[in-house]
This record gives sequence, C-alpha cells and structure tokens, in this order.
Amino acid sequence: MTTYIVGVDVGATTTKFGLLTSRGEHREQWKIPTDKKNGGKDFPPQIIAGIEERFRKHGISKGQVLGVGIGVPGFIDEDEEVVSAPNIGWKSYPLQSVFADAFDVPVCINNDANLAAAGEHWQGAGKNEASTFFITIGTGVGGGMIVNGELVNGVSGTAGEIGHTLVVPHGRLCTCGREGCLEEYVAVKGLRRSLRDHLRNGMDTSRLHEDSDAIAIYEAAASGDALARHIVNEAAYYLGYALANVATMLNPEKIIIGGGISAAGDTLLQPLHLHFKRFVLKEADRKLALEPARFGNDAGIYGAAWLVMKRLGYFDGRRWPLK
Amino acid sequence: MTTYIVGVDVGATTTKFGLLTSRGEHREQWKIPTDKKNGGKDFPPQIIAGIEERFRKHGISKGQVLGVGIGVPGFIDEDEEVVSAPNIGWKSYPLQSVFADAFDVPVCINNDANLAAAGEHWQGAGKNEASTFFITIGTGVGGGMIVNGELVNGVSGTAGEIGHTLVVPHGRLCTCGREGCLEEYVAVKGLRRSLRDHLRNGMDTSRLHEDSDAIAIYEAAASGDALARHIVNEAAYYLGYALANVATMLNPEKIIIGGGISAAGDTLLQPLHLHFKRFVLKEADRKLALEPARFGNDAGIYGAAWLVMKRLGYFDGRRWPLK
Repeated sequence: MTTYIVGVDVGATTTKFGLLTSRGEHREQWKIPTDKKNGGKDFPPQIIAGIEERFRKHGISKGQVLGVGIGVPGFIDEDEEVVSAPNIGWKSYPLQSVFADAFDVPVCINNDANLAAAGEHWQGAGKNEASTFFITIGTGVGGGMIVNGELVNGVSGTAGEIGHTLVVPHGRLCTCGREGCLEEYVAVKGLRRSLRDHLRNGMDTSRLHEDSDAIAIYEAAASGDALARHIVNEAAYYLGYALANVATMLNPEKIIIGGGISAAGDTLLQPLHLHFKRFVLKEADRKLALEPARFGNDAGIYGAAWLVMKRLGYFDGRRWPLK
Repeated sequence: MTTYIVGVDVGATTTKFGLLTSRGEHREQWKIPTDKKNGGKDFPPQIIAGIEERFRKHGISKGQVLGVGIGVPGFIDEDEEVVSAPNIGWKSYPLQSVFADAFDVPVCINNDANLAAAGEHWQGAGKNEASTFFITIGTGVGGGMIVNGELVNGVSGTAGEIGHTLVVPHGRLCTCGREGCLEEYVAVKGLRRSLRDHLRNGMDTSRLHEDSDAIAIYEAAASGDALARHIVNEAAYYLGYALANVATMLNPEKIIIGGGISAAGDTLLQPLHLHFKRFVLKEADRKLALEPARFGNDAGIYGAAWLVMKRLGYFDGRRWPLK
C-alpha cells in the first residue's frame, strides 16, 4: 500500500501543495491563492478542503496518509503554533491544532525558509551533507540551517534569520524596528533604496531610473551598466560579509543561495564569491562550498514533507529512501 | 564496580586533569605544566604517564576506565586529529591516534572552548537547556555551542569561533590575518590596544597608563575612571553586537559568558546587557538568558568527560545520571 505525505508552503500571495509518496516521489502539485481576509482565519479551511479533494481524486484513504507538513512565513513557537506571520495576518494563531483536528495524523509546522533549507538539504544542493546553511533572497532575506542532520529552530523560532543579523551598526532602518539588518542591503527593497541613494548622489547610468526594480538592476549589471554593477557589488559585499560570519561560526559543508534574486546567477555569485573569500576565516572555508539552490520554488514543499518523515523517524540511522 | 572517565584540558601554560566517575563525581583533579618543547611532541607521553600514575594510585584497573576526553586550544578535524594548535606547537598532529594507542578505550579530542561549552551545558549555567552558546573571553575569544543537545563542530572544526567573526569591516588587524575580528576589540590585547589609542588621543584618566593591563582597566572602570569606563563600554558594545547576531541566528536558550575577563562581573555585564538588548532581534530574545559562566577553569574537564559519555551513548533519550 502506497503511503503519502502532504507538503504545504504558505506564501504571501500563493500557497503551494505537494502530494508526495513516502519514497519522495511527487504524485501531484498544485497551488491556490492565499486568502488573507479576516486576519487569515478563512484560509486554513480552504487548505484542508483542497487537500481532502486531492485525496478523493486519487482514491487515497485516510489510512494511507502519514502526515502533513506546513511552512509558514513567520515565527513559529516550539509547540508549532504561529507566533506571528504578518504577511498572512496570523498572530498567536493555533495553526497546528486547527490541522491536527482536521487530519488524524501528525501535523508539523515550521518557518518557510527553514523548510526550504530542509528541502535543499534532503533532495537539492545540500544532499548528503550533514550540515547546510540556506539563505533565500527575495522581497526579504530568510534562512535556515541543518546541523548534525537536524533542523535548528531555536528556542523562539528565529534560528537561521540571517536577514535580521546586523551588518552596519546604526545603518538603514529595518521593518523589524532595528537598524542595519542585512535584508535592508541585499533584498529587493534594499537594492531599490541603494539605487535611489546613488541616483540622488548623481551617479551615472544609461539604463536605470528612479523606478527600476531589482530585475532591471541585475539585468543592467549583466549588460555592464556602471551604476547597476556598483549596486550589485555593494549587495554582494554585505552578503559576503554576513555569510562569512555564518561560515566561521557554523562551519557548514554547504552554503546554498536561493530565492528570487539568486536567479541573477553569476552577476551576483561572482562578486559574492570574491567578497566571501576575503571575509571568511581561512580554516572555516577549507571544506565549505557556496552554491546556488537546486530547487526553485518547490524546496519548501519537499522540506515540509521531510519534516513529517523526520518526525516519523524515517532518517534515523538509515539511508533514505527505505528499501 | 565504579567506572571512570578522564577529562584533560590542554592549556598554553598549564594542562588540567579530572578523574571523574561515570556518575560525574570528581575523584581527583591535578595539573602539570604544558611542555611545548620539540613542537609539543614530548608532551603527550607526559600526559599519558600522569594518567596511568593516577590509575595506579587509586587502584583503578584498565577495565574500569570508560574513556579519555581531551580539549585542545586549536582546530580539530572531524577525525579528531589536531589541524593546528599554535600555542602548543602541534600542526597536523595525530593526537587521537597517540592516545588511542596508549589506552585501549575511546579517546575523544575536541576544541577547548567547545568542551568548556559542553561542561557549562552539562553541569553549569546551561544545565537542562537544549541549546547553549558559550563565549570565553581572555587572552583571545573562543566559543562553542550545543544545539539540539549536540555539540556543533563544523566541517573543519571552526564552529563556535565567535572571536573570529567580523564586527568592523576593515577594522583592526587580527593574528588570523583578517581585519575587524571581535577578539581584537574585547579580549585582553584588544583592551590594551584601545587604551593606547585613547591615551594617544589625549583622553583623561587618573588611574591608567600605557602599560596598564586588562585587570587594571576593569578595576579602574569599577572605581569610576572615565577612560576605563569608556574602554569597557566600547568592548561591551562590540560584544553585545556580536552576541546579538548569534542570538538572532542560533536563538539559543542560554548565552554564557566565561573566561578570565568575565571575572569583571557587573562592570562588564551591565553595559553588555544594555548593548545586547538594543542590538538583538526582539523575537530572538523572548526566551533567552544571558548569564555568567558557573564553572571557572574546570568547565573544560567536565566537557571532556561529557564528550566521552556522549560518545558512549550516556545521554541518548535518558536523563543523566543513570539510575
């Protein structure tokens, strides 16, 4: 009898689903718009209905379902309730209980970047490594880490939050209320802020203007625009600096770069490597590789399934998949 | 039959030993000067002879010895050989093999700060916490961490090396060859460097002069000397900044401050708390405590014994000590 796991990745605009067999094969993938009305409280019933519909469609009985894993863009407590997910509206929201009541199987909740880290660790760029640090750069900057084969959550769920490590004391004001967070220098809004600052200072450009977005900045940099290259190099500098400190402190085997901005490829990775090598402790870099993510947006679904399988003891002292 | 574990903490000037029962009780503690002649190669036979002498003295047969744990001030590889321990002279030195040949029991080697972290986690200020970050501030700055109950080594042994995380890009030159490492701002030589810089800039003091040492600086700060307070506040600023980033990224339950300089007590801890609170991500600080170490210099011996007991499976899913 084939058994199944459901991986859910709740996003600010779209929520993605994966129906996986317990051997890690994708049976079906689908997505629905995230319903943020009523503080996000209307949405869980829609997630549950969508999953149950798929079970019916594939003739999957409740006994064949091993568990449900859910990634959420926010801080998750140790009892797996949502402390805050501002992009959805959830605040002190008992997400785990809501799902555990609906499905009579283990339900695991975790931060979305942590689960993307787990997905890359399990099936992606961090495969077969005992320790992986994953950073995702897009609208904001998130991160997650696998240490000694285990996902690290931290005592209040912030572990891996590299976007909120400080790189400039008393630097740019961040949405978190503090100053100088990495994400204010390398994520989408950070790049646009750099662009405006440099335009105001009269830096020359043939391709960029006040309203250019992050994609335009990276495209202009790839085609040699001086201002765009300067902005990208600045972002790579702060990213290299922050990742070098992570490498020194955590000393993982892999540092994986994911998220929308990582699509810029070598335009970002080349200057990043340069700055990283200069800032990192030599001994920490001896066996470490800095690589782009292998999954695109699906890492979170895999990670959510991994979390459930991990909880069920699938990886304890055994090679996955089970024979 | 009582069984025993030997914990060894190799220091730059003195090497400390602890003979512990497998219930964690101290049977005897002793120390010998560290012999650094001949690139440190004369020293291991002295360690071995000292341990064997204690076994004879207490009538302990080889069958009663469960293992030997050794802390070394340097980088240790995953196969537990010493990559480099510049203060002893060891470089690519097969310390594990030398001891495994002498004693027919498990021999575990690890970095000294990692083992001090393990000692504080096991029996000290981090007792009963699943995750602990330990920082030791003295001649240099070291650190270690326990995550999900496991010691984190990293792929090339640098995990926990907070002293070599950068706090000032292109800042003071460090012995590691890079610029702006935390240890250049808060360890003994960092304080003295700050002192000289500020004296040169004409800052006023009634108690300090060019040759004042770290103890004098902290004593002067405690008695209200303006320059000394300025220097200590500066060190606390950088320390608070670096520890806030650790708290955000690792989100441990305890951050423990140890090492010689931590003897300064509130003179350091008060400004440190202030800067830490200002720099840390609010969510990361919700359940976190910043505390002085409970052990003095003995944490490493306990940690070395812990490492052996851990290897022997003493803590797996059971409360220590065994009933």
